[in-house]
This record gives sequence, structure tokens and C-alpha cells, in this order.
Amino acid sequence: MMDLRVLYENITEYLNQEIILEGWIRNHRKQKEFGFIDFYDGTCFKSIQVVYDNKTNFDFISKLKIGSAIKVIGVLTKSVGSGQDYEVTVKDIILLGDCPVDYPIQPKRHTREFLREVAYLRPRTNLFQAVFRVRSVVAFAIHSYFQNNGYVYFHAPIITASDCEGAGEMFQVTTLDLNKVNGKPDYSKDFFGKPCNLTVSGQLQAETFALAYKKTYTFGPTFRAENSNTKTHASEFWMIEPEIAFCDLNGNMDIMEDMLKYIVKYVLEHCPDEMLFFDKFVENGLINKLNNLLNSQFVRVTHEEVIKILKEAKVKFEFTPEYGCDIAKEHEKYITEYFNGPVFITDWPKDIKAFYMKLNPDGKTVAAVDLEVPGAGELMGGSQREEDYDKLVSRMKELNLPLDSMEWYLNLRKFGGCVHSGFGMGFERLLIYLTGVENIRDVIPYPRTPGNCEY
Amino acid sequence: MMDLRVLYENITEYLNQEIILEGWIRNHRKQKEFGFIDFYDGTCFKSIQVVYDNKTNFDFISKLKIGSAIKVIGVLTKSVGSGQDYEVTVKDIILLGDCPVDYPIQPKRHTREFLREVAYLRPRTNLFQAVFRVRSVVAFAIHSYFQNNGYVYFHAPIITASDCEGAGEMFQVTTLDLNKVNGKPDYSKDFFGKPCNLTVSGQLQAETFALAYKKTYTFGPTFRAENSNTKTHASEFWMIEPEIAFCDLNGNMDIMEDMLKYIVKYVLEHCPDEMLFFDKFVENGLINKLNNLLNSQFVRVTHEEVIKILKEAKVKFEFTPEYGCDIAKEHEKYITEYFNGPVFITDWPKDIKAFYMKLNPDGKTVAAVDLEVPGAGELMGGSQREEDYDKLVSRMKELNLPLDSMEWYLNLRKFGGCVHSGFGMGFERLLIYLTGVENIRDVIPYPRTPGNCEY
Repeated sequence: MMDLRVLYENITEYLNQEIILEGWIRNHRKQKEFGFIDFYDGTCFKSIQVVYDNKTNFDFISKLKIGSAIKVIGVLTKSVGSGQDYEVTVKDIILLGDCPVDYPIQPKRHTREFLREVAYLRPRTNLFQAVFRVRSVVAFAIHSYFQNNGYVYFHAPIITASDCEGAGEMFQVTTLDLNKVNGKPDYSKDFFGKPCNLTVSGQLQAETFALAYKKTYTFGPTFRAENSNTKTHASEFWMIEPEIAFCDLNGNMDIMEDMLKYIVKYVLEHCPDEMLFFDKFVENGLINKLNNLLNSQFVRVTHEEVIKILKEAKVKFEFTPEYGCDIAKEHEKYITEYFNGPVFITDWPKDIKAFYMKLNPDGKTVAAVDLEVPGAGELMGGSQREEDYDKLVSRMKELNLPLDSMEWYLNLRKFGGCVHSGFGMGFERLLIYLTGVENIRDVIPYPRTPGNCEY
Repeated sequence: MMDLRVLYENITEYLNQEIILEGWIRNHRKQKEFGFIDFYDGTCFKSIQVVYDNKTNFDFISKLKIGSAIKVIGVLTKSVGSGQDYEVTVKDIILLGDCPVDYPIQPKRHTREFLREVAYLRPRTNLFQAVFRVRSVVAFAIHSYFQNNGYVYFHAPIITASDCEGAGEMFQVTTLDLNKVNGKPDYSKDFFGKPCNLTVSGQLQAETFALAYKKTYTFGPTFRAENSNTKTHASEFWMIEPEIAFCDLNGNMDIMEDMLKYIVKYVLEHCPDEMLFFDKFVENGLINKLNNLLNSQFVRVTHEEVIKILKEAKVKFEFTPEYGCDIAKEHEKYITEYFNGPVFITDWPKDIKAFYMKLNPDGKTVAAVDLEVPGAGELMGGSQREEDYDKLVSRMKELNLPLDSMEWYLNLRKFGGCVHSGFGMGFERLLIYLTGVENIRDVIPYPRTPGNCEY
């Protein structure tokens, strides 16, 4: 028994040889004396045509249903038909697992909404086969990039009592019996002896690793209990958070650019069939878009410069761009078009950014950066971290953040602290950019959104 | 600025060249006219000796404290002293981040208990530098193994409403305000509209991917809310769960053995300094133990044969071995010594195993397997899955498991189902085996155990 992937990688070797394949029937067309099965086994995007004639067990084989698991014994031959170079001429087919005629996945176009309702079957369709294999390959590209460059992979804790990040609403984790809680939960009886939550970010803990290993990255699930039902929000998603000691904001941007180009190159090289499929059926021009990114040098401009450009633009924006304020989606779009490529926007007003970002000498902005890419908007965000103990304490006091429970974080500035920086990239947002698939529900195997927790 | 790792990889190139390093002081010995700094930057296990004399800014440099972050400008030279081949002769040192004299990490032996109390600083010690780098490298070895062999990486959902696995006590995830819950939690107002938990295993969902991609694996966090305070239990840990279609119990064991040998070989090759350190200071004979594993062919025996061997053993066990029962740690130990190597124990009594395991023709045992390795006991567990719809339904009914909410899982047997198998490996249990570090709290950066959720 052989993987179809291995067969395709060594196809000339197997020509005119007997081969055995196990997999599934994607489509089945019967004629009077011939039949054609579109066969796949999930190990590569390509399927293979399996041809049988009336010298085989024709009555049995011709009745095999779509979705069935079969074992094919046959000979690999050059195909005389159009549409494929090779096919398998059947000696015998054994039915391993039948499939009823009302099987939901039929060889026709299903809507993505319908496929979400049978999420456990959708990886059997061409589109989702491609999406989730690309998800897997991109995950490995990310690990490869960081490991090849000497980073240590840090598993940030998922359950945490840290309540400081302020990145969003949190899920509570408890072993208290909610049927017995009467207004006053007794946390001394809870599993950890105190209220705990699911992490919204591993960054603060990752900083402890950066100050021991110089270069570290997280790649794990993070959670937001926000009641937002948009195409780009999920309650559970994976995030990559690199953190680098002895690295300032410029070094940080170098890494962001280098990493993104590595990933794009990797997926184009390793998933050519999938990427062609997306380009053809999901987002026309996708491969071109990605090649443009590879060939561009990312622009670096300050938030102030961006606002100036937006104010001078001869465009009627829905939201007026303002110094000191965040920018809207329409502004992001304008800016990437203005520069005709990816743009790092740096030095943001401190009041709209997180407490741990390094205060610039102007006292008004912080050494933060967002990366905006054409066609997707914000793809990553990062900053140089405030390494000055006193400045960090006073910023935390301003924001009424708890100093006691964050002593360990503050101490990183006391015990051999140094300039350090990092950034975060939402894995699913990256996948949306790389595949052209627009809805986050379609790039996560089993998405969690408000009111939705199936499987 | 250069990583110490890169310097060591190209050391002859840099001989007699000026180099710049940034990192930390691990130790500092001053003499009258000379000083020696043990310098590391976390990018490799090795540190480097930095030597300065009174032609430098001696008064300043000689006062630099342990733990401080520094920038070293110097020349790489052959060392005349013993203990190292190369050293850095200082031109100048710049202090980047000071460190107080009461810094908890001093160049002496700290107990692991003490270091757990300053978990955020322990990666700065030799032992934990080694442990968490090996953790990172082993994680990558696992991804490499599966990706090179054509597996699709599956991100199993973390929050789940599935309550069927029965692998242990679960943590509840909620957004209800516990101060307002009065005996009757109104789950219609909870985030997902129903009670949800943290996953105890991604296997059932992984099966949906195996039946689409043939070969899949998970690698993610899993959770158990068990109140056990042992050296090998944590409430949050990472697990690897491969799942393979068209693969029976024997094929499953082939993969388990092949994967484990790949990982062991990988870590010996990629972390030689760390492994030597563990062998010398943590577990004498560790490398020998691992080489023995590489050179052994794993034995395969049934549970029944094992009980027979145990019953015939001329050893007084604390627990009497019994047909139909689980085996104890002392039995595991005896069996790996008896066969002098790793042992697959197969075909376990069905009553002590999970509902989804394939019933053997004897009607009493299931096609399950545990891998026992010398010095660690059970390292992995797996099984062929029940692919027969009717048998699976009747087993679930016997155990009063909910059929309705598991319809999707059952349907995998209806819609082109096939023989398939898989196994689970606790990542931390593997790390304990590979490093010789005994306590699970010492192989997880920020361990979660009953009553303990710091950072």
C-alpha cells in the first residue's frame, strides 16, 4: 500500500508496475463497458483516475458509491484520455467501507455555509483539503523559520491568573460546581485556589524566555470572549508571538519582514497545487499578490506621517483621520495602495497602545509597529518593550494595573534587563491572507464563535 | 552583534577577528590585574570566557555584577588557560542592564524546589537552559517527523462541548458571572449557550481528519482537573495524537517505534551539549539508555502473555498480577527488564480500556497497545479504533454514552469508514524520559498543578 503523494513524487518509476492504493471515491462515472473513478487518499491535493472495464468484476465495481473507502489493485499506465497524464488500470477493487447514497458530500458545488454545518466532512472536499493542508504546511514553515534561526519554542501557559494584558474579554476556567455556587463563589475551593482564565496572549511570559534565550517564540492557542460575529473574529485562535532580546523596533521590523517572506516562499514552493486552486477558484490573482510581496521592500513610516498623507488625500473617507487616533480599515487600504506594497506604521500614540510598549523621547508616542499588507490590512503588530523599570511602573500606575501580581514582569527590568522587542501574528489571519478564503470559520477545523461550540 | 551559537558554528573563521556579543554574566572572577567573565547569550548551551586586563576600563568592568546584561567588544583568541579552547579578549564592555547583588540566580547549586519558586528566572540556569531548549528541539523533531512523512497537522479544538472521552475530570469554561449565579446557572446566557470544557484529548476530532487526509497528528495542550499531586501529573500538558487511516494495530506499532527512534536520534544529534550535561549531572547513563533504545527492536507481547510471565516470576510483587486487570508500575518495570528493552503490550481486557477501541474476535479484549520503555514505564498508548458502526453503538450503549451528540463520530463509520488506528504520547512524559529530569514541574515552563497557577 502506497501514499498517492509518494506515487506522484516517483511516478515514472512506477509506470507499468502493479500498485496498490487505499483511499476514497470522489466521483464515479460509469459507461456500458468502462468506468472511471476519481480516487484520492488525502496525502496530496491531486487525485488519480482509476479505470476499469468489463474484464474486471464489472457488476460489483460499477455499483461502488461516492464516498466509499476502497482498495485499488491495478497497473499505473499512461492515460489516453485528456485531463490527466497517468491513470490506474484496475485489476481488482475491494470495498473497505461503504457509503450511503444520501452522503452529504457529493461531487458538486456546496456552499461554504452548508459545509460549516457538516464541518467534520468538509476536509473531504477539494477546497477544504487544500485549506487545512496549507494550514499544516504553514504551521511547519513557521516552526522551521524560527528553529533554523536559533529561536527557542516557548509553550506559554494556557490557563493563567494573570489579568494584566487587557487584550480583551476572558473566559473563566473553574472546577466549582456551578449548580452549587450561590452568589458568592468560594475560590479557595476552586482548582487553583483563585479565579483563573484562558490566556489572551503569551507575550508577557515569553519575555522571560527572551531574557534567558535571547530569541524565543510562542505558537499556541489564545482566547477572546468577545461577542463579535465578524468574518475575522474567532473565540479560539492560534497565535505566534516571537520575542527577541537586544533587538529594537527596527530589528523587530527586519524579522517581521524576513519571516513573512520566508512563509510565503515556503507555501508557494510546498503547496503549488493548492495555491493554484486558490488562485483559480477563490481569489484571482492570489499568486501574483504573494509574488509581489516577495519582491517588495516593506515601507516604514510613522503614524504621524500616515495621518498627514491621509489628511492630504483627495478621497472622501467615512472616518476622518486624526493625529492621536487609531486608523480605520479604509485608511489601511489607502496607505497600502499609496505605497503600492506592505507598510510598517510605527510610533503610535501611546494612549491607544498597550502599557508595556516603550515610550518614545517625545513622551507622546510609543515604539509600536503595525504591518499593513495590500488586500488584508493589519497582519501583525509589535513593539519595543519598555525596559526602564521606573517608566514601566509609572505607566502601570497610570492605568491602575496591579503591581504586586506583576512583580516578576517588572523584575525582568531589574535583573539584567535590556532592550527587547517582539510581535504577534494571528495564525488564522495569515491563512486568510495566504489562501484568499475570507471567513475565519473556514480556516479553522472546528471554529468557536459566540453560541457555536460543535464537535 | 552575533549569536554565540553562530560564533561557535564558525569559530575558526572568527579567530583573531574583532567580534561583538550581547548577553549576560553568569559568573565573574576578578584578580588584581585580570578578570574573567563567564558570558552566555542563551543561543546555545555553551558559554564563552571573556578576559579583560588593566589596559581596559578595569575599575568599571571588574565591578560588573552577576546577572547583568552586557555588550562585549573584543577579539576572539585561542585560550591559554585550561577549560576552554577559545576566549574573548576584551577591548571594551558596555553595561546594558545592571543586576542587584541579591539577584536570586547565583553561580552555585540551587535546589529545584527553590528554582520552581522563581520559575521566571530558572531558564537562566544551566539545567533549565538545557531542559527548555531540548523541549523546543524535541517539539520540532516531532513536527519534522510527521511533516516529512506526509501527515497533516491538525489543531484540535481546545474548548469543547464533547463529554465523551472519559479520560478524566474536566475544567469548565464559562463567561457567566459567578457572583450572579444562584444555584441554577442559565447556560442560555453562557458564551456558547451550553456548558463547555477544556479538551482532555483531540483524538475523536483527529479521526475526522484521518478519514480525509489518511495521516494526521495533533500537537497541542490538553487538560485534566485531577487532584493528583504526583511527579508525573500536571493539569495542563501537551500531547501528540497521530491518527492513521488504513492502518491496523501492527502498523500503529511500526509508527510508534519509528517515531520514537527518530526523536531520540534527533535530540542526540541536535543537542549534544545538553545531553552530555544531563548524562553527567542528572541521570548517569542517559545517553547509553537512549542509544540502547535506538539499537533495540521493540518486543510485541499480549497482555495475557505478560500476566503469565508476571505470575511465573520469582519476585514478590506488592500487587498480584491478574488476567483481566491493569498492570502496576512494578509490573511494567519487571517486563521491560525481562525483555531487556522496550515492550509493546497488546490486546488488553476491554473493560479497562476506552469505548472506541476495536473489539477483538475473542469478545473480551480490544486491539489496544501500551508502549513500556526501560526506566520510564508507559510512554505511549494507542489502539485500532472500532470501525464497525453496530459494535461501536452497542459498546456506547453499554457504557451509557450519549449517542446523539456523538452522531458525527459514529457517522465516520458510515461514510466510507475504514480500519484506522492512532496513539497518544504525553509530551512532558517524553521529556522526562529524554532528559532524566524526574518531575513534570521541571519540564514545563510554567506548570499548572492543583493550587498552583503562577505567572
